[in-house]
Amino acid sequence: MASRLDGRAPDQLRPVTITRNWLDHAEGSVLVEFGKTRVLVAASVTEGVPRWRKGSGLGWVTSEYAMLPRSTNTRSDRESVKGRIGGRTHEISRLIGRSLRAVIDYKALGENTIVIDCDVLQADGGTRTASITGAYVALADAVNWLRSRGALAGEPLLGSVAAISVGVIDGVPMLDLPYEEDSRAEVDMNIVCTGEGRFVEVQGTAEGEPFDRDVLNSLLDLGLAGCAELTRLQNEALGR
Amino acid sequence: MASRLDGRAPDQLRPVTITRNWLDHAEGSVLVEFGKTRVLVAASVTEGVPRWRKGSGLGWVTSEYAMLPRSTNTRSDRESVKGRIGGRTHEISRLIGRSLRAVIDYKALGENTIVIDCDVLQADGGTRTASITGAYVALADAVNWLRSRGALAGEPLLGSVAAISVGVIDGVPMLDLPYEEDSRAEVDMNIVCTGEGRFVEVQGTAEGEPFDRDVLNSLLDLGLAGCAELTRLQNEALGR
Amino acid sequence: MASRLDGRAPDQLRPVTITRNWLDHAEGSVLVEFGKTRVLVAASVTEGVPRWRKGSGLGWVTSEYAMLPRSTNTRSDRESVKGRIGGRTHEISRLIGRSLRAVIDYKALGENTIVIDCDVLQADGGTRTASITGAYVALADAVNWLRSRGALAGEPLLGSVAAISVGVIDGVPMLDLPYEEDSRAEVDMNIVCTGEGRFVEVQGTAEGEPFDRDVLNSLLDLGLAGCAELTRLQNEALGR
Amino acid sequence: MASRLDGRAPDQLRPVTITRNWLDHAEGSVLVEFGKTRVLVAASVTEGVPRWRKGSGLGWVTSEYAMLPRSTNTRSDRESVKGRIGGRTHEISRLIGRSLRAVIDYKALGENTIVIDCDVLQADGGTRTASITGAYVALADAVNWLRSRGALAGEPLLGSVAAISVGVIDGVPMLDLPYEEDSRAEVDMNIVCTGEGRFVEVQGTAEGEPFDRDVLNSLLDLGLAGCAELTRLQNEALGR
Amino acid sequence: MASRLDGRAPDQLRPVTITRNWLDHAEGSVLVEFGKTRVLVAASVTEGVPRWRKGSGLGWVTSEYAMLPRSTNTRSDRESVKGRIGGRTHEISRLIGRSLRAVIDYKALGENTIVIDCDVLQADGGTRTASITGAYVALADAVNWLRSRGALAGEPLLGSVAAISVGVIDGVPMLDLPYEEDSRAEVDMNIVCTGEGRFVEVQGTAEGEPFDRDVLNSLLDLGLAGCAELTRLQNEALGR
Amino acid sequence: MASRLDGRAPDQLRPVTITRNWLDHAEGSVLVEFGKTRVLVAASVTEGVPRWRKGSGLGWVTSEYAMLPRSTNTRSDRESVKGRIGGRTHEISRLIGRSLRAVIDYKALGENTIVIDCDVLQADGGTRTASITGAYVALADAVNWLRSRGALAGEPLLGSVAAISVGVIDGVPMLDLPYEEDSRAEVDMNIVCTGEGRFVEVQGTAEGEPFDRDVLNSLLDLGLAGCAELTRLQNEALGR
Repeated sequence: MASRLDGRAPDQLRPVTITRNWLDHAEGSVLVEFGKTRVLVAASVTEGVPRWRKGSGLGWVTSEYAMLPRSTNTRSDRESVKGRIGGRTHEISRLIGRSLRAVIDYKALGENTIVIDCDVLQADGGTRTASITGAYVALADAVNWLRSRGALAGEPLLGSVAAISVGVIDGVPMLDLPYEEDSRAEVDMNIVCTGEGRFVEVQGTAEGEPFDRDVLNSLLDLGLAGCAELTRLQNEALGR
Repeated sequence: MASRLDGRAPDQLRPVTITRNWLDHAEGSVLVEFGKTRVLVAASVTEGVPRWRKGSGLGWVTSEYAMLPRSTNTRSDRESVKGRIGGRTHEISRLIGRSLRAVIDYKALGENTIVIDCDVLQADGGTRTASITGAYVALADAVNWLRSRGALAGEPLLGSVAAISVGVIDGVPMLDLPYEEDSRAEVDMNIVCTGEGRFVEVQGTAEGEPFDRDVLNSLLDLGLAGCAELTRLQNEALGR
Repeated sequence: MASRLDGRAPDQLRPVTITRNWLDHAEGSVLVEFGKTRVLVAASVTEGVPRWRKGSGLGWVTSEYAMLPRSTNTRSDRESVKGRIGGRTHEISRLIGRSLRAVIDYKALGENTIVIDCDVLQADGGTRTASITGAYVALADAVNWLRSRGALAGEPLLGSVAAISVGVIDGVPMLDLPYEEDSRAEVDMNIVCTGEGRFVEVQGTAEGEPFDRDVLNSLLDLGLAGCAELTRLQNEALGR
Repeated sequence: MASRLDGRAPDQLRPVTITRNWLDHAEGSVLVEFGKTRVLVAASVTEGVPRWRKGSGLGWVTSEYAMLPRSTNTRSDRESVKGRIGGRTHEISRLIGRSLRAVIDYKALGENTIVIDCDVLQADGGTRTASITGAYVALADAVNWLRSRGALAGEPLLGSVAAISVGVIDGVPMLDLPYEEDSRAEVDMNIVCTGEGRFVEVQGTAEGEPFDRDVLNSLLDLGLAGCAELTRLQNEALGR
Repeated sequence: MASRLDGRAPDQLRPVTITRNWLDHAEGSVLVEFGKTRVLVAASVTEGVPRWRKGSGLGWVTSEYAMLPRSTNTRSDRESVKGRIGGRTHEISRLIGRSLRAVIDYKALGENTIVIDCDVLQADGGTRTASITGAYVALADAVNWLRSRGALAGEPLLGSVAAISVGVIDGVPMLDLPYEEDSRAEVDMNIVCTGEGRFVEVQGTAEGEPFDRDVLNSLLDLGLAGCAELTRLQNEALGR
Repeated sequence: MASRLDGRAPDQLRPVTITRNWLDHAEGSVLVEFGKTRVLVAASVTEGVPRWRKGSGLGWVTSEYAMLPRSTNTRSDRESVKGRIGGRTHEISRLIGRSLRAVIDYKALGENTIVIDCDVLQADGGTRTASITGAYVALADAVNWLRSRGALAGEPLLGSVAAISVGVIDGVPMLDLPYEEDSRAEVDMNIVCTGEGRFVEVQGTAEGEPFDRDVLNSLLDLGLAGCAELTRLQNEALGR
């Protein structure tokens, strides 16, 4: 049977912790950990929306993702020093934003903007999925903050959202890959689901051999089960 | 039954044309058209590989994607004038590169680099899938060029690759979306397949409602069939 | 007698073709070819003018020039990737804009802006002169588009404008230099004229030996004749 | 007598905590807290030195400082997104680097480079002084890491270094200003001292009225005492 | 006794000249020289204030500092060509601005902005202190210009400001260091004072050994005396 | 008869002064003044050539042009602050470089590089022509400096070069336009000549009406005469 370096079963998550209110200033904040991966998520609320949306009565949610230079095994140059944001950073920021917007009712949010900053303090694979999973909790707290001020026109959260990575290593589909597994996976997939188990985003890539429909189906099964467990942990963290 | 603005059946491609050798200088070049979408693809061969790969005996293939400012319905600012490349551009460049690399044997390519430039002259939806589909043909011509010079250590093409968009419009899964459909799709998916019908990349996004497994399966069916047809057209263009 | 690689006489243009309406979206568009040099010109109309011109009752015309990375014999890096526009690009964009503005009556144009994008698909010398020559035709179509919408206060075109390169090769003044000639020319000159044969711009540079008044006069003669021929071709293309 | 919002005496530090080994990858790392100010410091060791120092037999120590976008009360734009680093960031990065280099023997360090990243997770005044104080501890751990690998030519640490802010609020000199005090201070000073109480850096600024020699002397007294206490806490954290 | 290369006593300034109205366009301008250090200062007045200050009734004063590429012994690259401003430039620009603002009454200035440009034509140490000393004179002339137009609400100059460098060379505290001394100083300090001898800014750095309180006091004494002499020269230049 | 604001005849230069050795560090330096236009030119010599020229035995000459922010009537933003160099700056830098290279024998220069910095301290029209005229003198001094060190393989100066602006104001061709004339000229032309009266560069632009051959000829006559006078002044300055 497939054995993993950290002793997990193929369909098992790493230890996940979600610590709310890690920051004093932000309207919502979470330190989320998937094993050694550690992401600080801050949700910032501002009244008003970007210019192109003014007067629409609709709110806006967006996200930015970044890694600290020494979050990884060897130090990377800062994107601020290089003066430009890399393609990977752009791509993940956009993914997080889209994932959160899938569960937002802009009308109920009213003309408020929530910016979600996901800063990776330590990276060990799955930083984008940990970011999305933590970001939902920070978003929920920011929405609570708005509600407590009477600034909402209704319930802006249409549901919850969580994300997990899956992949094929040595021919075996596995859940929640740490860096060591991710870097030698044959197929790499990220799945973003709602709490009800519907897909928000599915992104699968053949890193080595192209893959067939059966492999795709096994990975989707694993990912859906992983997201269901993350949904449970999100609800627990939110005291629901 | 679902009717489309341009009269196509839901599982029908737009008229596709692949014109080889559209440029005089490039080692491979293609003008690829999916309906009104028109992309100029140039494959440039250079001896040698990037510094980090020197002495490995392995080749390299990479890609860049861009849109002309008036390829779209209203003019966009040039990224060269803005001084930075947008997230979408980065994302698509990376997707095209990954897709091509999935069918390349670096050892057989030897220490040669092929850069694939995909410049969208006119955009009407599906620019990234047209780019990948055309890029494979330009890549094949660049490989031929290397072969005719005796610069190859073997056959670098492990297979062919093509790509198509699928989506759900008014609840109906449809193939190859033009801009008008794409902009109001509930689900938007891009599928990259090999000529043998295996997946290289699957990217699905809920633009409105999250979607369930059945919808995902219908879209995968449509996409696989579309890619098979594109493979046929690629072979035809290459005189195979 | 001086013989040219492509068999032309010293005072002969390369084959010139001007294809109108090459794009579906743009208000004016032209694919212009001087031999192997191929430039896609798009004229984009927008209502209104830049902030510094608002309320003046006057229109505005501007231009941007760029080369695709593989338009040249060896691939160049994209200016968007480098993050800055080179001096040559700036210089040519400014020249094209000035040349077109010389035949525009801003008052008749009214508070409308026309942006002319000249993108070089393939370069073989004379890209700036082909751009100007094609741009005038695209501009005329954009003006027609405005006229058909009743958006003009009069006739904004004061005349036509065309441009050609001339140079001295092996001591012989020659018209319309392809890259191979341009790169070894002793004197290199670009002449921009109106349809009536008056000068809009004269730019001559000694690439090797400084040149005297006689050479200058021969080059001006050649250039004026070349522009007259281009004017005829522009009128033909516009069905005048 | 002067009373402070948080009940401290004028010459009293905020609660200071120094948590070593907060990260798994970095050769030295510290989470340092001065009250609500919370800075994550990572020391990264690389073999070799910058090009201009190669072959000298001397090591190099440098530092970069940055703030997370929501470390402050209202969210700031990321410097990576703006594409340029602000003057304040530059200034503080340089100050931290100089302060650490003052206690380094380059010869004993050998041709190794240590980069100190100070990322402010939460800001409440004194982020540069907390950074320097924590950075010394992370630096000491990185030096230990090098020593344990036999990579040192001697003892590179000539002493310890700590830093504290002092200022005049309502005419009263005070130690370790939180944001609320800092923003209304009449004089603002940062003092960097060695463990032996000698000055590495003294930076005083009149924010309102220019100040006289007596005020300067009171502030220096306060700062020296504060640094002495921080030195004690650093030693405690390092188990000395 | 300590002897200096240029024969000065340790407490002696280099020859200082302040030439007013060196430029024809600027509302205030000064060519200031400290020995071979030569800085061109231009004060530009514009009606109105930056957006964030509008309607406050308060004025604004800011400064920018730069060095010509060949102001130094070996040519440096232009910051405009590099596309980014270095940390040192930022730091000095901010210092000059703060120093001038310390003697400005914003209310009396009214909603006017004065920008002070300090461009170093030739550098031989002390460029920031020469800049501040000259900038005060240019600022005074710009204020006069505003006064002569009746654009002031009162007297905006609360006093004068001057600056000088001091340092320790071979253990001896010295005034006004040229480059040769500055580059081997053990301690380097810049002192900015008002005409009344109060401190606006004190910045001392140990370049080698950390320094003690006695050294600090000697340097402050030297600096205060130097600023007093510069104040006299400023008044002389202004014909007071 | 045409009268000019400053009383000059149409074919008369403004007062021209060329002050050599204005800087202490540069190998050649000139403060050149055409009326109120004042440009500081520094020629910097470095051993060796850019990478692409190494081992060729040939030298290199290049130039950079910039304006101080308050050289003009109203202050302009610094290009270093904007983070990009404008088109006009690029264009003029390139023109100056080309003009100087026209009189350089690279072989005689040997593998040395001379960089010419032209910084406009005050602008009143003709900054590019003053720059070229002064740059030749600074270049000659830098060449002398190399010669005195025995670093030359021969005589690198093939001749001298000077430049002047001409234009048509109110229908009258005039020499050496100050800003007030330049801004309302109908035709604007810059002429660069060798000391022997041959053309290095001719750039004429219709600012209003296109112009005919007769006007062009009058302007060329004026420009040649102006350059001859400037050549005399250059020789005088160089003590020839």
